[in-house]
Amino acid sequence: MPRLSERGIHMPASPIRKLVPFAEAAKERGVNVYHLNIGQPDLPTPHKAMDALRQIQLKTLAYSPSEGNLSLRRELVKYYSRYGIGLDPDEIIVTAGGSEAVLLTFMACMDPGDEVIMTEPGYANYIGFAMMAGLTIKTVPSRIEDGFALPPASEFEKAISPKTKAILICNPNNPTGYLYSPEELFQLRDIVRDHDLFLISDEVYREFVYNGEPYVSALTLFGVSDNVIVIDSVSKRYSECGVRVGMLVSRNKAVLHSVLKFSQARLSPPLLGQLVAEASVEGTEEYSRECFEEYKARRDFFIDGLNKIKGVYSPMPQGAFYTVAKLPVDDAEAFCKWCLTDFCLETNGKKETVMMAPCSGFCVTPGLGKDQVRLAYVLKIPDLERALIVLRAALEAYGNR
Amino acid sequence: MPRLSERGIHMPASPIRKLVPFAEAAKERGVNVYHLNIGQPDLPTPHKAMDALRQIQLKTLAYSPSEGNLSLRRELVKYYSRYGIGLDPDEIIVTAGGSEAVLLTFMACMDPGDEVIMTEPGYANYIGFAMMAGLTIKTVPSRIEDGFALPPASEFEKAISPKTKAILICNPNNPTGYLYSPEELFQLRDIVRDHDLFLISDEVYREFVYNGEPYVSALTLFGVSDNVIVIDSVSKRYSECGVRVGMLVSRNKAVLHSVLKFSQARLSPPLLGQLVAEASVEGTEEYSRECFEEYKARRDFFIDGLNKIKGVYSPMPQGAFYTVAKLPVDDAEAFCKWCLTDFCLETNGKKETVMMAPCSGFCVTPGLGKDQVRLAYVLKIPDLERALIVLRAALEAYGNR
Repeated sequence: MPRLSERGIHMPASPIRKLVPFAEAAKERGVNVYHLNIGQPDLPTPHKAMDALRQIQLKTLAYSPSEGNLSLRRELVKYYSRYGIGLDPDEIIVTAGGSEAVLLTFMACMDPGDEVIMTEPGYANYIGFAMMAGLTIKTVPSRIEDGFALPPASEFEKAISPKTKAILICNPNNPTGYLYSPEELFQLRDIVRDHDLFLISDEVYREFVYNGEPYVSALTLFGVSDNVIVIDSVSKRYSECGVRVGMLVSRNKAVLHSVLKFSQARLSPPLLGQLVAEASVEGTEEYSRECFEEYKARRDFFIDGLNKIKGVYSPMPQGAFYTVAKLPVDDAEAFCKWCLTDFCLETNGKKETVMMAPCSGFCVTPGLGKDQVRLAYVLKIPDLERALIVLRAALEAYGNR
Repeated sequence: MPRLSERGIHMPASPIRKLVPFAEAAKERGVNVYHLNIGQPDLPTPHKAMDALRQIQLKTLAYSPSEGNLSLRRELVKYYSRYGIGLDPDEIIVTAGGSEAVLLTFMACMDPGDEVIMTEPGYANYIGFAMMAGLTIKTVPSRIEDGFALPPASEFEKAISPKTKAILICNPNNPTGYLYSPEELFQLRDIVRDHDLFLISDEVYREFVYNGEPYVSALTLFGVSDNVIVIDSVSKRYSECGVRVGMLVSRNKAVLHSVLKFSQARLSPPLLGQLVAEASVEGTEEYSRECFEEYKARRDFFIDGLNKIKGVYSPMPQGAFYTVAKLPVDDAEAFCKWCLTDFCLETNGKKETVMMAPCSGFCVTPGLGKDQVRLAYVLKIPDLERALIVLRAALEAYGNR
């Protein structure tokens, strides 16, 4: 039998999917599992977008242009202009979700052996895409005691080597929910400018910023327009993760030219997703406001509830719909698994448990985040309330084993 | 300004898209361009599939499983059983088009520096995906004089080195339309078995086989079930290239396990495409028969017409909807460009020209296929008729420059 590649063997499994078989087994035992593990919004996709789908007039579902439909890119230009970001449709390439935008950015900007610096904990799939592209990830740890703030510039400077080609951030952050301040972004701007690096900024949670201040996109940073590549997506913003429509935005013509060549190899981004996305981007301000209010209320309720559980600590995230919380356990991965395999809370014959994502899966450094979990608050408040009750009971039972 | 990666700089542009700007300019001058350059079927997507879309009941367009919807994979199992291929749904991973299936196969099976052998001319985007995966492509040339038959086993043996991990075929072939005979497939089976290689078989044109014999899939080859990985797609079969639904099929559990990890990194294949694909796979036998008859008639008409043009030669392709034809020109790429920039046939005030894909774009070896073009017969017969008239006139005018 032919042997797999080294990368095929060593590719990490997704930390949010690793426990899925145990969750399936729990469900088969009649246990209701609250999914705090995955950022799959439960809110409906905009009616307007679903109507566009139901009224589709096309006869042949043909390839769209490799760079994405011009009509969608024009709507996106209008969308970005509402954030004070002036763009040309040619500066946007539509991809199969933000995921593909990350992969193609890595491919166009870095060669095997090159280094990319990211904060830790970080979005786990960056690690997978780096593996595909043959890159080495260098991490700069952010700490729960600092609320997962951007580590000081000196720590980035220390991590930079002659092989470093890029700094990759996610803002607001997945998994921590941390929102970078303008000052932190200016620090990053200075670093990438001084060291001639790319700044890859994943901004898919741009709409979910709870501190009341205007969002600062990396695209608005002065003097680094050739350095900045923004990853974006309609997935979370319009509760349409399944359509697989993301985008890569940059003013660097060489990057755009190169990414387009990689985009041509895979022919085109999903056509139907683009129709849905285009209908979602325009005239859905009220929908966006409602989603925002809902997530904000959930955040307030959930983080407050978490911190009321003995031994649990979560900073107050200012963005996205995740938090990384510290639990009173030695090994959060073992605890997360135990919640699915050995525990359920039984109330009036109803069995419940929680599924969480161990934070270690979002870390490269062994041992980091070992007592932490990532929690997504994408459930309705009554479900979050039950999930908190279940989590409290699970922690008590786990302590008394 | 940070420098692109070497692969970002050297990534080839798609040979079928390279001439697009010239075609756009011709259209702006009022010239009607017959697109023989791209395999974009003009036939309608099945009504049943479009209806499934129009009647969609989902409220939230959520992520689907990374391996694809189970209901779709179950329908595909039934589809393959009609070809005498027994499969389990777990042996199918749904991808964003056949394109992603190729990329993930490369990632899971080969490391940078490993070699994959393919016949030449070959599907150009394999070269792009090999570049992304850091692979070296070794080619074994097939010749127009042999109708692009599989080169003899000895030529493959010569190309095999200690770095060789796989042989990649496309059957029926894009760009040549050649259909491998059972004997040729048995030869390949023996080679991959004896040298412990993967056999990657791209079978997206399986439905389009014109010689009346049953199709032999690599999945039916005896004794190499751990070696074979099949690339498939609904794109061409149901005229739905835009939905981006392909699949990777293998009985090698290690390959499936590894590909699934890469699939998890990009979260999920397109949801809406999967709904369309599922509705297309079942109960569309009549649709498929009609498409088949139409393409067969087009092939017969088009190849006959081509061979009637002085100096043009095309073998009779037995599958897919392409042919590679020799033209009486020194440099087919220059001629293809000239057709768009300097030529049009004017009849009763109507201006027409043809767009073709230079065969050199499907070759790795410099100079190979220099006087050849790939032509796709995905236009209606009256349009093919006009395209042939235009091509004849273009060749005459080109000779008299």
